[in-house]
Formats: sequence, C-alpha cells, structure tokens
Amino acid sequence: MRRAYLDHASTTPPRPEAVAAVLAWLATPAADPGRLHEEGRVVRDLLEEARRQVAALVSATPREIVFTSGGTEAVNAAVWGATRQNPGAPVLFAEVEHSAVRQASTRLAPTETVPVDGTARIDRDFLEERLAATDRPRPALVHCQWANHEVGTVQPVREIVGICRAAGVLVHVDAAAACGHVPMDLGDLGADLVSLSAHKIGGLPGAGALVVHRGSRFEPLIVGGEQERARRAGLEALPALRAFGAAAGALGADDQRLLHREAGQSRRHLAVLSAAATAVEGVEIVGPPQAEERLPSLLCLGVHGVEAEPVLIGLDRAGVAVHSGSACSSESIEPSPVLEAMGVDPSHSLRVSVGWSTTDTDIAAFATAFADVVAGLRALRG
Amino acid sequence: MRRAYLDHASTTPPRPEAVAAVLAWLATPAADPGRLHEEGRVVRDLLEEARRQVAALVSATPREIVFTSGGTEAVNAAVWGATRQNPGAPVLFAEVEHSAVRQASTRLAPTETVPVDGTARIDRDFLEERLAATDRPRPALVHCQWANHEVGTVQPVREIVGICRAAGVLVHVDAAAACGHVPMDLGDLGADLVSLSAHKIGGLPGAGALVVHRGSRFEPLIVGGEQERARRAGLEALPALRAFGAAAGALGADDQRLLHREAGQSRRHLAVLSAAATAVEGVEIVGPPQAEERLPSLLCLGVHGVEAEPVLIGLDRAGVAVHSGSACSSESIEPSPVLEAMGVDPSHSLRVSVGWSTTDTDIAAFATAFADVVAGLRALRG
Repeated sequence: MRRAYLDHASTTPPRPEAVAAVLAWLATPAADPGRLHEEGRVVRDLLEEARRQVAALVSATPREIVFTSGGTEAVNAAVWGATRQNPGAPVLFAEVEHSAVRQASTRLAPTETVPVDGTARIDRDFLEERLAATDRPRPALVHCQWANHEVGTVQPVREIVGICRAAGVLVHVDAAAACGHVPMDLGDLGADLVSLSAHKIGGLPGAGALVVHRGSRFEPLIVGGEQERARRAGLEALPALRAFGAAAGALGADDQRLLHREAGQSRRHLAVLSAAATAVEGVEIVGPPQAEERLPSLLCLGVHGVEAEPVLIGLDRAGVAVHSGSACSSESIEPSPVLEAMGVDPSHSLRVSVGWSTTDTDIAAFATAFADVVAGLRALRG
Repeated sequence: MRRAYLDHASTTPPRPEAVAAVLAWLATPAADPGRLHEEGRVVRDLLEEARRQVAALVSATPREIVFTSGGTEAVNAAVWGATRQNPGAPVLFAEVEHSAVRQASTRLAPTETVPVDGTARIDRDFLEERLAATDRPRPALVHCQWANHEVGTVQPVREIVGICRAAGVLVHVDAAAACGHVPMDLGDLGADLVSLSAHKIGGLPGAGALVVHRGSRFEPLIVGGEQERARRAGLEALPALRAFGAAAGALGADDQRLLHREAGQSRRHLAVLSAAATAVEGVEIVGPPQAEERLPSLLCLGVHGVEAEPVLIGLDRAGVAVHSGSACSSESIEPSPVLEAMGVDPSHSLRVSVGWSTTDTDIAAFATAFADVVAGLRALRG
C-alpha cells in the first residue's frame, strides 16, 4: 500500500541535494578537518562550504554559525551560555516553547512564564512591561520561538527581539520549526542566539546550528577541543553537516526561490486538506484561524467527540501518517503543554504537516481516510 | 598521486558495512522513531538494532547504551552526570587523558591529578592510596582512559576500575581510542560510565555512546525530550547511528573475528613501519617500548634534531598523512599535554596510526618518504 507521510514537522525526508552530498562525502577520503594534511584540508573546505550554505539561507555570516548535533543541542547550548554568563538571573519563556527550551531553562535558572493567547501567540506587551520593571531581577535570557511546532503560530519574533534588544537582555530564537518554511534574515533580526535543525529542512538528523550574533563569546556546552572556533568540541558530523549545507543551499539559491515555491505548494496542500477536514462535523482548526498567521506547512486539527490517538492509529492503518499532541510517544509522555497553555484539550488534537515531497495524492489520501476514520470511531461510540 | 593515509586514530574511513547501512537508511522512508505511525516504528526498529550491535561489540546490554553525537559529548555527559550527583566533590584524572576529559572536568569541579610514568601509564598505587585517604574529600568521579590516544599506552583499566569500585567511587573509562582495536567486556569490567566514538571504529562522525552501567540514573547533559530513555534528548542521528551499529556488528561478529584479524594486521604493519622508522638515526618510539603494551594500531615516534611539523608537511607532500602532537591544528593550539605529562618533548613527536583499510603499500610509502624527509630537513639545518 502506498503511504501518505504527513508528519514532516517531526522530520522531513532528506532532499535529493542532501542525499547527493552524503554520497559525495562517502566517496571523499575521510579525515579530521582539524588536521594539517591534504585529506584534512579537503574536508575542512567541505565543512566551510556547508557553513556558508547554512549562513546564506538565514542571512547570517559564516562566522556566526556554530554547528551542533541538532536543534536540541543548540537550544541547550544557548541556555547554558546565557545562564553561565549571568548565574541566578531568571529565564523568561512562554509555555508554548518546545520542551527543549523549557527543560533546558528550568534546570539551570529560575524561570518566569510569558503568557500566550488562545492561538499560542506570545504576549509582547507583557514582555515589554516585565523588562521595563525596575523592581524585578534582570533576566539572563528571553526565549521566543519563531513559529510554534504544534499549531504553527508564527510569533511576533521581530517585535520581541526588538523589545529585548532595547532592554539590553539576551534573546534566543528557536527557529527549528520555522526554518526552511519562511524567509529569515538573521542579520536584520539581530537576535543574540538562534537555533536551527538540519533534518527539518531536508538535511539529515544529527546536525543543527546555533547562530551566535556577531560571534559573541559564550561558554560552550560541549568542551574538549577547538572545533567551531572553540565554541563546540568534538569531530564535526561531516556527512550530516554536508547534507545540512546542501539542503540549505537548495532552499536558498536564487533568492530563496525553492523556499517560496514550496511554501506556496504547502499552503495549497493545506488549504485542500483543511477544507476536507473541517467539512467533517465537529472538526476545527486549532491555533490561528488565518493561514497567513501560521506556518505554511503545518495544521493542528481539533476533533470533537473522539480521542486523537485512535484517529492517528486509524489513519496509520489506512496508510496515512500524522502526529498527535497527546500520543504516548517516546518524545513526550504527557499531554502537550503547548495546547494546555492555549486552553485547548490536547487529547482531541492531531497535527498534520506537509513538506517538499508531499503530493496531491497524499492530500487526497488523508481527506478520504480522515472522514472514514472519524465516522467509524463515532459510530463505535454509538 | 596515490596517498597513504596513516592518521586512522584521528578518524578512520567508514567501513563498507557502514556505507551500506547509510545507503539503506537513505532508501528507507524518513521518520521520527518516537512516533506511533508505521514509518516511526520501522525507524525505531532500525535504531534498536544499532543499539544491540554496539552493545554486543563491547559486551554491554542494549539498555546500558545511551547514544550521543560522539565521544566528546559522551565524555561531557559523563562528567556532567557525575558532578551533578555530587556537587563540589573533586574529579581525579591523569594529564594524559583526552582534552575532552580534562576540560569537561576542570570547568565543573575541583580536580586532582593522578601521576603517570614515562610511558603514560597511570599510577594505580597512587590512586589506591588517594581513595583510601580518610582526610581527603571523596571524589565525585575518577577517569581512566582505556588506552592513550597519542602514544597508544594501554592502561591498567581493569585494576583501576576495581580500585574505584572497592572504594565506592564512580569511574569513567574513555574507551574512544581503544574501542575496535582491543576486545572489551564492559559487563565484566563494571565501570560506571564508558565513552565510545563511532567514527574511530569505521562508522561515521556524528555518533557515539555513553555506556551507563546497569542503567544507573544520571542527569542528562542535553535535555528536552524523552529519547534514549530520557537520558539524551533530540532526534536520534539515525544514519550515523546505523553506520555505528553496522561497524560494530562487523567487528563483533563471530567472536570478534574481524577485530582480532585487524589487530594482527595492524601489529604487522606497525612492526614494519617501526623498524623502518627507527632505522633512521635519532628516531625512537615514544611511549611503551613493547608493542604488547600499546594499542595495535598506533605508534608515536620521536625525531631528534628536527621539528615534527616540517616532517609532517614533508610527508604530506610526499603523499603520506600522519599527525603530530605539536601541530597547530584547529583541535589544539597548544603542545600536547599528554607528551608533556610523560616528560617528552612534543615538538619532535609524530603519531602514525593504521586501520582497517591500511595496505602494505601505505607502509612502504611511509618508510621511503620518512627517511627522505628527515634526511632532507637535517641537511637543511646543516
């Protein structure tokens, strides 16, 4: 049976360019890019090319890119660096941030919560007032995701970075869910720290980056070598980094032509899918109602009267892969705090996400299966 | 020009089995192994197979394997976990440990140095006395490398683990340099924490493991997800982990037949190389004089009267890649503390290391080039 994979927000298949980069790397003599011999210099050039490609996609400079093993490590490194610089000072974030942001922060610093509205949008007025308060401790760090990973809300990241910079407080932007789907100009944004993930843009799992604005000095999370200008120790994950660079290069070429084309395709796919899903009685969109306020690639659906997990399992049996905020996966054994922070019941919500390889057939398969599965489950309930 | 790559201790090419595993992974539908859908379950099975393969190579149980992004992260995680469990308590290590061990320890705890002899061998009597001292603080952790990465000394790891266990003190074994070259039975060894690196056994860079004895509870270094039984967050680096498993599987099959065969081949290669090198006047072996006391794959040579760096560059021009403990590489900008701790001048020492793909032709190329390069440099000096 042909499968329709609609869980691209969890991980998206490697792009052809990323696959080609891995194959080319496998055919290149192996070496440590820190070595002086010819093999080392060749690999060093490959590494630096990947760095330029990733930097170009997000309009950062190559020197600002610190390669990591992924978005989660990048987030942990951001929190580590900021809290070591300012021990004991609080870290501020909204409950809709990714668990990596929340957990990396709560274990290292006192934390404060920034509220969100019913669409998961971060309250910038609250943040502005908090940072202006002279009777409260000055934060070590403020987090602001670029877009939410469960409901797709695009945050007022530009305004929030501006508020933090005006207050002279470090700001970290988790851009893992948004990168590759919306254009980014980090030079213009000016956030101190930005986290990126390779496998979410069509690279390979095992690579990511922390973008450190203008090369500010931060104590590294992983020490023991001078790699990445002494900002991340350990032999560089060359094949995954080459794939990261290739995926970024493909998306970024010709003024991000592919990124814009794919965003348009994703919007069209999700418009069809959304219309089909909400045609089923008792199904609604969770998160911002307007598509322009969401990532082009991600949609959260609330299904009244049935639990999300049996819907997910029913869809899976019908050949359609989606994700649920309540699924007892290995990633999270508790109901989504994102949805809880929005006041949404996580046990009835499904996340559907499309990507570069999604076809009209995938969308049609979802539309058919979804109506059948929901009807079947409701019939069972009597 | 055909190149002779004799820097396998820095990184060794991926084995054919590892390459095949990556190619197979690239042909498998991508998914997050933490997801409930079919794609996720398939990838979860692949991940767990890799875990069993790595566990089998070192005679650990699969539950003890915590996959990381590499040996350096594993070492950092070991130190983090041990020092968080026992804040303020000292960490003990010899100066011949890898920079990851030294730097990860010094930034998190007060440290004490365990002396070594002129062959880099750790002084177990000193350690035993230190741990018996009732007037000194009880250590949070003792490090003992399995074998040294610069001169190849195999440490009395069994005795040192025994001393630590008898004293009830946590012990971490950095086995990155030794794994794949000497048989390991971690179940029998009983060390609390053991670090492994994938790219040093013919996997890919970007993978490693921390082996946590009998699943002891440790606070993870990287948080934010329930992956690896909540011991290491972040989407698993599947392609590199599959390659790690495949390399481990190849080495471990049939009672580690390949490991033993390659160790024999490496010993023969280094015996020829060593004879050729020491036939040049003023060249001697640094580290244990007896081959049985060293890793089978690694030899450090001291060259009187000429600096190591021009020798390395001369060899490189002649098509031979080696490493020097004094090279101003990106990994280390200071002379090797390993060699300094042994009382050896690092500016005159070269590391030559062989591996699974080394041929007799590589060894012959070194022998010819080395004599010429050293003679040429000495002639230049007049």
